[in-house]
Parts: sequence; structure tokens; C-alpha cells
Amino acid sequence: MESPPHATASADEMPSIWKEQHAQDAPPGFVPPMGPGEVAAVESLLGYEFRDKALVEEALTHGSFYYPYRPGVTYERLEYLGDAVLTCVVSREVFLTYGQLQPGPLTRLRAANVDKEKLARVAVVHGLHHFLRHKAPNLDGQITDFIEELSMYPIHSNGLLDPPKVLCDVVESLIGAIYCDSNFNQEIVWQVFQKLADPLISLETLGKHPVSELFEFCQKTRRGVKIVKDEWDKNLTVEVLIDGEMVGRATYAQKKEIAQNRAAKAALDKLKETLGQSQTEPMSAEVSEQFNKIDLTGS
Amino acid sequence: MESPPHATASADEMPSIWKEQHAQDAPPGFVPPMGPGEVAAVESLLGYEFRDKALVEEALTHGSFYYPYRPGVTYERLEYLGDAVLTCVVSREVFLTYGQLQPGPLTRLRAANVDKEKLARVAVVHGLHHFLRHKAPNLDGQITDFIEELSMYPIHSNGLLDPPKVLCDVVESLIGAIYCDSNFNQEIVWQVFQKLADPLISLETLGKHPVSELFEFCQKTRRGVKIVKDEWDKNLTVEVLIDGEMVGRATYAQKKEIAQNRAAKAALDKLKETLGQSQTEPMSAEVSEQFNKIDLTGS
Repeated sequence: MESPPHATASADEMPSIWKEQHAQDAPPGFVPPMGPGEVAAVESLLGYEFRDKALVEEALTHGSFYYPYRPGVTYERLEYLGDAVLTCVVSREVFLTYGQLQPGPLTRLRAANVDKEKLARVAVVHGLHHFLRHKAPNLDGQITDFIEELSMYPIHSNGLLDPPKVLCDVVESLIGAIYCDSNFNQEIVWQVFQKLADPLISLETLGKHPVSELFEFCQKTRRGVKIVKDEWDKNLTVEVLIDGEMVGRATYAQKKEIAQNRAAKAALDKLKETLGQSQTEPMSAEVSEQFNKIDLTGS
Repeated sequence: MESPPHATASADEMPSIWKEQHAQDAPPGFVPPMGPGEVAAVESLLGYEFRDKALVEEALTHGSFYYPYRPGVTYERLEYLGDAVLTCVVSREVFLTYGQLQPGPLTRLRAANVDKEKLARVAVVHGLHHFLRHKAPNLDGQITDFIEELSMYPIHSNGLLDPPKVLCDVVESLIGAIYCDSNFNQEIVWQVFQKLADPLISLETLGKHPVSELFEFCQKTRRGVKIVKDEWDKNLTVEVLIDGEMVGRATYAQKKEIAQNRAAKAALDKLKETLGQSQTEPMSAEVSEQFNKIDLTGS
């Protein structure tokens, strides 16, 4: 879903107006108010009308917005609350949709639908990021980069993208705001989130983490696999060796983990190319969890 | 709160009856039913009457109960659901009780009220463990040990106890069962849990983890601290060195982390004894989190 034109237009203008008008002359702790038009635009994007409009402002205010003044109220308390209620309603949805599924895949399905990437995706798909109140110097550039990369992964990248955490936070805080405003009505939270997050990731579209997939594949086909991360501190590069031979490599400066995931993906792609796709198809999450061993340890 | 006499009496008898009657001759996947008296006893302990009594049975059945037969339905799906709804309602409670508290201490308060120790405590205080259906050979002994040690820590041990995870799981699964049975009513879940968990851990009773407290104390008083864990694999012992001198030591076979926490506690006790208690009083969680730095990285 694209954001409505009026919302995008006003959002594009607002951050620079705020920055110029309030950056230098705001008193300590002062929160520049959101205009009623902006609040209405956010309500329209969410499909929810707030009784307490101040919650919208709170949910969209990042700590950096107060810089260089003393920080005031930020979205963090609402984010804490939103995270909890979102996990609850998505847990329930997955529990009800898959009546026989074991806790392992249940947990992975839930995680994929509320993790940093999924929620950051929700934020930018609906244009909520235009309303974020912040002065973090690199954030706008990071968001632009994320939006560009997103088009390569229509459902979920499974660890190949590095979304700005603020985008995820702000979806959680808006959900927390709705939970508060609706007098803690989880059904309303679910109705709003279901529309925002559509399509939810299902057991059918739940991919595998490239590192797990790589190790499983190598175990199944009796290949030795080694992920070499020691050099990342020097050259920002991670390499994958299969039976001693380098078959995948990735360079990523910000996080070693992302470099590792991308190197694993590169190795899997190379293996698929060499061996034929069918051999590297991941087992479905359901199948691989079907026969859990009995736990006799009691702990 | 002690469990009512009738509940404790029937629970003490049931496990051995089940074990003798069903251990060897149950067909694969067969679940020996709970008697109506047992279900009623559990309902009485929880203060909740189930519409679907089968949920009580499911919530109390550990995977080991089927041994040596093919495992059937266990409490794990309900545990997954109960964990999520419990986190949500306790998050909300803490959020509402402490209207200005920052996310750091909010998260720690929530965690302390739903962590493994708190929930295991809930299980044994109310006698819910008597109704657990399992055949894990060491579990009953572990529960007995845990109950004995519990009396030393009236509120929470902050990492000094090692509760059997099953006790925590079964509280989560019973809460999950109530959430299901009440047609996903969070208010009912909260009413039940509030009574079971009374007294909830508050900001005033929230202790500090001994390792954090030790490091903070040594930083404040410019002492060098080192926790020596390398030898645990050989002698199951962790030592704490302050300015090179051994001041705390603990031996614990099952988990290195518990040995470490107990060694830190021993060191703190020794320091308190030597230096006078006032110097080692922990800062309250609230004070130490008051002035969070502004995050300008945007990630």
C-alpha cells in the first residue's frame, strides 16, 4: 500500500521546517508540537483515530529530536509497550493459524513477523518514516539506502539487510500508542497491525537464515564448511570455505553479522549454480521440526 | 499463599498412581486423563474455572510423560502462548504503575516478574508442581532442592538460584490455557496472574544482579575486579579476584553462570563485611538510568 498523496507531501516538507524553526531556539525539554494535519495524516496511514492526539507526537519523537537541548519525552516507553502487545497478538495469530505446529517453528514465524526488518518494512511501505521527529545526522541516508535495498527482497531478506532500528522502533511505539489510546484493547491493535503488516509471513513464505541453510546443506551433503570472520576487523570481509575452498565472500562495514550472512548467501548461490537448485532447497521449517526428541532431563 | 489441603493431598497421590498404572501399558500417543478432582483442584489453585477442561491436562503434560511411547500433545504450544500474553500484561502493569520510568528499568522490572525464577516460585508456592504430569527421572529431586533453597530468598535471588525450567514452563502453559479458554481475554489473564504472583516485584524490591553490583562497586571505588571462570570445567569453581586477591569463590556443578553469580555474591558479602555495608549498597535501578544519553547515531 502506498501512503496517500497528502500525507507524503506534508511529511516531505515538515522535517526541514522543524529543523530550521526549532533546532536552535527551543527551551530545554520543549517539544515542538505536531500540526493537526500531520497527526491526521498519521492516523490515516494507521487506519486509527486517536482520542489522545499527544500520543501520536510522543510515538514519533526520537531522543535526538531534542538535540542540543535537554531530552524530553521520547517514543521509548511506548516502544517498550508496543513490542510486548505486538508479540502477544502475533503469537496468538500464529498459534491459531497453525493448530498443530510445534513451538520451534511457531517462535520463528512470530519472530519473522515482528522482527526489525519486518517492522522497518512496515514503516517505509506506509510512509510512516516521513513523520519521524529526529535530528540523527545519518538516519535519513540510512533510510534511503534501506528503501533501495528492500526492493530486492519482496518478503524478507532473512538477515541480509541491515534496517535502521529507529524504523522498527517507531512502528512499535505507534502500536504502543494505539494500545494505550484504545484502553489496552488488543483486538484494535491486531486489526491495525494486520492491515499494516499485510502480507504476514506464513509458513510457506518463511525463508531460512542463510547461515542455518548453509550448515544444513553441508551436513546433508557431507561437506566441510567454515566461516572465516577473523579478518573482518581489518578488511570488513567474511569468507565461506567449503572443503577448504573459498566459495562465498561478502564485505559489509557496519556489522560483522550482516557480512557473514551475505557471505553465506553468496556461498549458497554459488553451490546452487554449481550443483543444481534442487539440492540446496531448504527443508520447510515444519518438516525439520516434526519429530522433537523427548526431553527427559526435566530442566 | 499455601495451596488448599485437598489439592495438596490429591496431588501427592496422583503421580505415583499414574506412573504405576500407565507407564508400561499405554499405547503410543495415549494421554492418561486427569481425573475431574485433579482438574478442579488446579482450577481452585488458579482461581479460574475452565470451560474446556482438556486444556488443563494439556498445560500440565510434559513431553517425558509419554516415555517410552511416542510423544503426544505437550504443554509447549500453550507455554509459547502464555509466555507472550504474560509478558504483555506485565509490561502494561509496569508501564502504568511507573508513569515516568525509562525503558531500561521498565524492562528489568518486567523481566524480574516473568523470569524463570519468579514463575518457578509461583508454581511451588501454590503447589501447581504437584499436578505436573512427567517422567523426567531427576525432576522431583530438583524441585525439592529448589523449594528448600527458595526460603533463603523471600523476593528473588537475582541469579543465585537455578530453578527447574519445567516449573516456569508450566505456569506459562497454564496462563496460555486460560488465555485460550477465556477467548483470549487479557484482563482475565491479568486477574489470575496478579493473584498468583503476589507480591509482584516492584522498583523498591528489585534487586541487582550480583555481577553488575560487583562491577559497579569496584568501578566506583576504583578497585580492579576479575572473575576467573577458566577452571570451572575442571573444578566446577569460579573465583572473584579484587585487586589480585581472591575474595569470593563458589562451586556449582550444573551451570557455570550460577557458580559465577554465587562467587560474585560471596565477594560482595566479603566486601560488605570488611568495608561496612553502606559502601556496597546498590544504586536503585531508577537512579542509575535517570540520564540516558541522547542517541545521535539513529540506529
